[in-house]
Amino acid sequence: MKQRLFTPGPTPVPESVMLRMAQPLIHHRNPEFQEIFARVNESLKYVFQTAQPVITLTSSGTGAMEAAIVNLFSPGDTVIYINGGKFGERWGKISRAYNLEAIEVKVPWGTAAQPEQIEEALKQRPTAKAVLLTHSETSTGVFTNIKRINDIIKSSSNALTIVDGITSVGAHEMRFDEWGLDCIITGSQKGLMMPPGLAFITLSERAWAMSAESKLPKFYFNLAIAKKSLLTNDTAWTPAITLVLGLDTALDMLRAEGIENVWARHERLTRAVRAGCEGLGLKLFGNSPSHALTSVWLPEAVDGKKFLDTLKKIYGVTTAAGQDDYKGKIFRISHLGYYDDADITGLFTCVELALGAVGYSFSQGAGVGAAQKELMRK
Amino acid sequence: MKQRLFTPGPTPVPESVMLRMAQPLIHHRNPEFQEIFARVNESLKYVFQTAQPVITLTSSGTGAMEAAIVNLFSPGDTVIYINGGKFGERWGKISRAYNLEAIEVKVPWGTAAQPEQIEEALKQRPTAKAVLLTHSETSTGVFTNIKRINDIIKSSSNALTIVDGITSVGAHEMRFDEWGLDCIITGSQKGLMMPPGLAFITLSERAWAMSAESKLPKFYFNLAIAKKSLLTNDTAWTPAITLVLGLDTALDMLRAEGIENVWARHERLTRAVRAGCEGLGLKLFGNSPSHALTSVWLPEAVDGKKFLDTLKKIYGVTTAAGQDDYKGKIFRISHLGYYDDADITGLFTCVELALGAVGYSFSQGAGVGAAQKELMRK
Repeated sequence: MKQRLFTPGPTPVPESVMLRMAQPLIHHRNPEFQEIFARVNESLKYVFQTAQPVITLTSSGTGAMEAAIVNLFSPGDTVIYINGGKFGERWGKISRAYNLEAIEVKVPWGTAAQPEQIEEALKQRPTAKAVLLTHSETSTGVFTNIKRINDIIKSSSNALTIVDGITSVGAHEMRFDEWGLDCIITGSQKGLMMPPGLAFITLSERAWAMSAESKLPKFYFNLAIAKKSLLTNDTAWTPAITLVLGLDTALDMLRAEGIENVWARHERLTRAVRAGCEGLGLKLFGNSPSHALTSVWLPEAVDGKKFLDTLKKIYGVTTAAGQDDYKGKIFRISHLGYYDDADITGLFTCVELALGAVGYSFSQGAGVGAAQKELMRK
Repeated sequence: MKQRLFTPGPTPVPESVMLRMAQPLIHHRNPEFQEIFARVNESLKYVFQTAQPVITLTSSGTGAMEAAIVNLFSPGDTVIYINGGKFGERWGKISRAYNLEAIEVKVPWGTAAQPEQIEEALKQRPTAKAVLLTHSETSTGVFTNIKRINDIIKSSSNALTIVDGITSVGAHEMRFDEWGLDCIITGSQKGLMMPPGLAFITLSERAWAMSAESKLPKFYFNLAIAKKSLLTNDTAWTPAITLVLGLDTALDMLRAEGIENVWARHERLTRAVRAGCEGLGLKLFGNSPSHALTSVWLPEAVDGKKFLDTLKKIYGVTTAAGQDDYKGKIFRISHLGYYDDADITGLFTCVELALGAVGYSFSQGAGVGAAQKELMRK
């Protein structure tokens, strides 16, 4: 059976990327690797829309989140974080693990933090060194307007704006330098169309300056060492070489498409997925849609678990289940990374087959048709 | 030109492993992945010769070294480390980055630490919580007898024995449980015949107990979280999925050969490489040969850099240069991982061609012949 991943990481990897990674290994301290890594580093700056170096770490995205914390702060520093899902919550967990005072701004799952909430939190904690945000919250499919929030932060405080862009980079407009963000991180297995294993982090000039004052202990994730190595297109420690080679191919594809076009494609596919779900009478979850994934309430009229199992085991489509309180209540369809129009109608072909198999009542073709209509709209 | 890697990481990766990693991606939170990861975890225990769980981290080997430090100690703890090369030295750097008191036992590059030196150091620092060792020092090609040293540690102190096995696991006899070691770490791109990107760490029961008392901050490398995830064959954070799949194939190969046979093969190839070098009049560096790599003085009669460049650029053989004080003085030939008899005579075929090209005087076939003679010895 043909397998199709619609999960928000790992996301599908182009065949050309997989085969690039299967080529004979080269040594990472040789000019051959450095030439490739130089090209990768330039392309990463383009994707991040920054003139600052983008540091490549061999770790998951969580490692890059930790890198942000341990390089920018000192024990006892205050940070404000938005908790609207599992990944926002993780900012708090990492901050507390490193003995920061982490002030939570809690927002209900499915809703986005509003600029006024951040403004209020900063008013109450004027000494906060940073606000930790999640651009696209993977557990809920909620998009947060970090540009507007950053404007509020900058106009009302000296706090750094630190963004988890793990499922937003490549899906949502993000202009690091122009918007004046201070730190953004992402992982390879998301919008970059790669397997997991690499993570990326960028700092603003101001954040680099602040990192020199940081007193938290660090070694593997020490960004000053990594930045120095970048001067010779080296990494501080042995990198995941095959993944760097694959990334070279993946970034070439993104450059060829053009980052604005990549963002526009994600927005378009998001509209199509939402239309397809609505066409089938499935209710959408959340009030601020991410362009990386769409969260959908499981239909109450049928056995939700049986539907997802059928979709996966009989029709080869893997989606993501709900997490925590929303386990068994919602499911999440990713359209982040290497997807096109035909993937989306293909998805609804399988969704309709699975819904039919579990006895859900709907008009045949209503999902495929609604998605297609959205895709064909001028 | 056919390329041949004789570097101590990355080491050559079998074609079957590379192609396994090129197969369509699966999701790491699904039973399909967990079944594979369960098998990988069992095989890792076999390779480490332990009944304890082996934790897989997505990082380089340095990340696993850091994991050992941050999970076992508290600020101000005293540790003793052996510095006989760049990787022994790294134990000191990581320990100090985390505010430990790190007592150095310095041994000259090319020589192995003796049990008496450790005994003496422990006598002077009876409060030391651990001794940090390097089983095979990659910068020098020196083997340290960790079994004998561990016996001394155990008979004269309560210190933990922590071993960097990055270039020894799979090359040297290592029986974690039987010998009573407390922690060993390794990386994927070494004896495990994989690309870089994964690292591994095992703790003894006593070390696990000690980890519960550790007060150093940690999150990404928190081994308690990783150990708990292992109960369901999960990882704490998203793992480098493709590398885990490749590892499954690589470990199958090691199991099929049998770990004792793998160790014996490395010893045999080491003898052949040493014999081949001596046959060519090349002087060996160091007095305690690792079975992972052989360090050799560059011949003084010719331009050493030109020889290595010719070997790499004209004959496709990549070796490793000397490091620090030994840059331009020695070179290092790795025979760690996926090598067999024909690889070694192939190596000397190229070495002789390169030596000939730079005008070194030797008897044609003396390298190949001496290596072959050693390989054919009963």
